[in-house]
Parts: sequence; structure tokens; C-alpha cells
Amino acid sequence: MCAILPYMITKGRIQFIKSLSEKKNRNAKGVFVVEGAKSVAELLTSKLVIEELYVTHEFAKKYEKELHLAGKQHAAIQQYLKPQLIEAGELKHMSTLEATDSAIAIVKQPKIKVQDPVEVAKKNIVLILEQVRDPGNLGTIMRIADWYGVTHIYASTETVDMYNNKTIIASMGSFTRVTLEYVDIRELIDKLYAAKLDVVASVLDGESSHTFAWPKQGALLIGNEANGLSKETKKLATYHVSIPRFGEAESLNAAIATAVLLDTWKRG
Amino acid sequence: MCAILPYMITKGRIQFIKSLSEKKNRNAKGVFVVEGAKSVAELLTSKLVIEELYVTHEFAKKYEKELHLAGKQHAAIQQYLKPQLIEAGELKHMSTLEATDSAIAIVKQPKIKVQDPVEVAKKNIVLILEQVRDPGNLGTIMRIADWYGVTHIYASTETVDMYNNKTIIASMGSFTRVTLEYVDIRELIDKLYAAKLDVVASVLDGESSHTFAWPKQGALLIGNEANGLSKETKKLATYHVSIPRFGEAESLNAAIATAVLLDTWKRG
Repeated sequence: MCAILPYMITKGRIQFIKSLSEKKNRNAKGVFVVEGAKSVAELLTSKLVIEELYVTHEFAKKYEKELHLAGKQHAAIQQYLKPQLIEAGELKHMSTLEATDSAIAIVKQPKIKVQDPVEVAKKNIVLILEQVRDPGNLGTIMRIADWYGVTHIYASTETVDMYNNKTIIASMGSFTRVTLEYVDIRELIDKLYAAKLDVVASVLDGESSHTFAWPKQGALLIGNEANGLSKETKKLATYHVSIPRFGEAESLNAAIATAVLLDTWKRG
Repeated sequence: MCAILPYMITKGRIQFIKSLSEKKNRNAKGVFVVEGAKSVAELLTSKLVIEELYVTHEFAKKYEKELHLAGKQHAAIQQYLKPQLIEAGELKHMSTLEATDSAIAIVKQPKIKVQDPVEVAKKNIVLILEQVRDPGNLGTIMRIADWYGVTHIYASTETVDMYNNKTIIASMGSFTRVTLEYVDIRELIDKLYAAKLDVVASVLDGESSHTFAWPKQGALLIGNEANGLSKETKKLATYHVSIPRFGEAESLNAAIATAVLLDTWKRG
């Protein structure tokens, strides 16, 4: 672990980090931003490659062990891992968050090891998302997937970027453990179906999730926040389930529906 | 229904509406702000008293019927209901939302008809919140309660204000149907307990919610987003349940936990 030295961050560096809130800039550099004490702490114990790390004095004290271990465990990234001790005030210029015990990191977008989705779905429930647009929702869905042991999410190409700063924040560290791939989800559903794997779609006019005979394996299909699933995609699903409503609200948020349905499925 | 006339909104009015994003200003005037097409549409069919209403041309066209019905049904509020047709650009100055088919309303804070919580809990599950701090979370919890037919929420006095603009937006209209009271929740729990009603606390180290024998009636107790329930309040609960974890995420968001547990309880 390199020594943590006080550091004056340049305006140029601040501008650079701010520029990474845009997808095109993130992709041009192949990196993304992780903000917040909890997320950065989880990052330190992950296999992701940290390119730059800025931490406040409080963070360095609170997460001394994690910082030390990160330097030891990931020998390959040691050269990158030069945490810069900065003032909380400086952090505020770079981050959307406001805590003083905080940190911010620039992280390399990992190369996703593409696995055959049929093989993945044979072993574990997978999640398929169509046009989830809200970055916070996507991050919350990643956190939920992580809670329920769902390690693979397949999202339609119109779904919001998983490296959006808000998505990373909302995932609360789960971005280090859940793999998300942008694919043609209709093709994917066809493949699963051909392999006799079931696709269960969350809809508003389906069979009750409380009485539905959940299959042993397969995929859960979740649609857009405002409009649900497109007609075409909805048709492709093997089953259509709905969370029973006991009151008056018109719908449940996409992340909430994901959690309730995964809980019901996992309960068996 | 009054005629909808084009209207030039004054800077003073815009300033006033903006000032209502602060709790002290809302309470001084006894009003709150409802933003967004969907929320305002639900407002029009509710019994809440609208003091001022600003709608774009698109909104007036899309919700013509609701505007008309609102004028007819609520004779008592007709004098207040003078929707002002404004430009989408003007709306942007007042609202945190950006849609052009939108609307904004100033609404009277309703006088809550205080009911004996024991009587309420005898008939229906109630929700008790301790220190929920995030306005969006509180709104989402109101929407979830509304979905599951939970009509009464009791919140500790440190819980965020239900008339916060973000709470109202996140509740997606459920603020018109769910009653929220700020009370001493420990006193409330004592009362429920004395009446032999069970209080089920959501915790991280409790009995599995999947195998727990849910009581017929009672209260679900949900704690703060970051720290869960306080030790003192946790001790007062009759039962402690946890949502089984199958993966690695450290916790689930408070609103997500509320939805999963209400779903499990309602399923019976």
C-alpha cells in the first residue's frame, strides 16, 4: 500500500471527474466513477481496477484496514492505487454527495466475460430488464438482485447505462458483484425458450404471484417504469404474473416489483 | 368548473411556490405542493382542497374530464379551483419536474381525523416508521401501503415531513388515500401491545419472513434507512423478522423491505 499523502487536486482533475457523469466520456476513457464511503469501501475489497482514488481524512481513518488490504491483495493494481488525501470541501466539488467521511474513485470498466445465458439460467434465476430508464431504479434493482443471489442481469439496449453515477450510488456496492449485459432481449428470450427455460413476465393483468406455480429455474422479465413491457416482448414470455393488489395504488415501482417477485420465487 | 383562461404568472407567485419546498413555509401557510401530471390528476378526483392550480395546455386537454368532474363533484372547493393555463416554460420555473404535459397545485393540508390507533389496527394492518429520513423513500412507502390496502401509517416525529415535495411526487398520488400521523411510536407500540395486538419488527437478525407464522392482525415496524430500528424500539416489538438473503448485498432499502414484508403478510 502506498503512503497516503496530502494532495492538492487540480482544477483539471476536478473537471475530468465531473465530465465522467456523461456516458460518452465514460466510454471514451473506459472508466466510471464510484462515490460515497460505503461504495468505495466495497470497491476496495472487489477485483475491480481502481485508477484514481480520493479519500478524506475521516475515510482513511475509518477504512484503514480495507485500504491496507486492497493494496496487499491486488498487487497488480498497486501502481494505480495511490489514494489522495483531500479535504471534504474539495470532494464536494467533484461529487454529488456531501458526507465528510467520504471518498471518490475512478474505476476501469471491467471486461465482461461473456457466458452463454442459457448455461447461466440453467443454474440460477436471471433477470431480464426492458427499458428501465431511471438510473436510481437500475441501481436499486442491482442491489435487490445481489440480495437474492441473482448474479446476471440482461438489459435491453435502451436501458439506462449501468455506469451512470446515480446507478452506481444506488447499487450500494452491488455493482462489484452483479454482472449486467446489454443484449437483444427478444433474441435472449427465444434462446431460453428453445432450451425449455421459462420466462416469467411481471405484468398488471397476469396470474396472482401468490398462487402461481413458480418454475424451478428461469428468468424474471421486468418492464419499463411507466409503460411496463412492450407488447412484443410481453407476448414472448412463458408466464405472466401480477402482484396482488389489496388497495388503490395504480402500480408498484419496477424495483419494488422485482424484489417482491424474486422473494416469492426464492421462497418456492 | 371555471373557464380555463390563459394567465401570466407573476414572479411573486413563482417565488411563493418555490418557498413551499421548505417545511416551515408549508406549515406557516398550512399548504403543500403537488407536482406532475399523474399526481395532480389523482388530486382532482380526491377530496383534498386545491387552493391554486396551474396546468399546461397539454394537461388541460389530456385531463379535460378530470378537471370537469373535479369542478362538479367538489362544489365546496369550486371557488378555489381556478386552473391557470400556463406555458410549459413557466412551469419549469416553479417545478422540479420537466414534462410539458404537466401541472402544479397548491393544496390545503387536510385536518387529520384522529382515530384510536388500536381500533384501526384491529381492523387492518398498520405501518409504523421510525426515523425514515429520505423523502423519496417515505413517498414510495406511502405508495406501497396504498397498494397493500394499508390506510394508516404512524411515523416517529423525526421522520421526514410527508408534505415534502419529493415525498408527494414519489407517492404517485397515494398521499390522497393514505393517512400519516406523527406520533410517539413507543407509546403507540405499548398501546397496541396492551390491546394484545402484535408488532412485527423488520430487522437483519430475526426469524425468516418465509417461515414466520404471521399473526392475523397488527403492525409492521420499519426502521431508519441506514441504521435500522433503535435498540429501545426494537426491544418493544413482539416479533422480529428478516427477509432471507440468498446473495451478498448487505441490506435492502427500507421501502423494498416494507413491500416484501407486506406482500408476505398479506399472502398469509
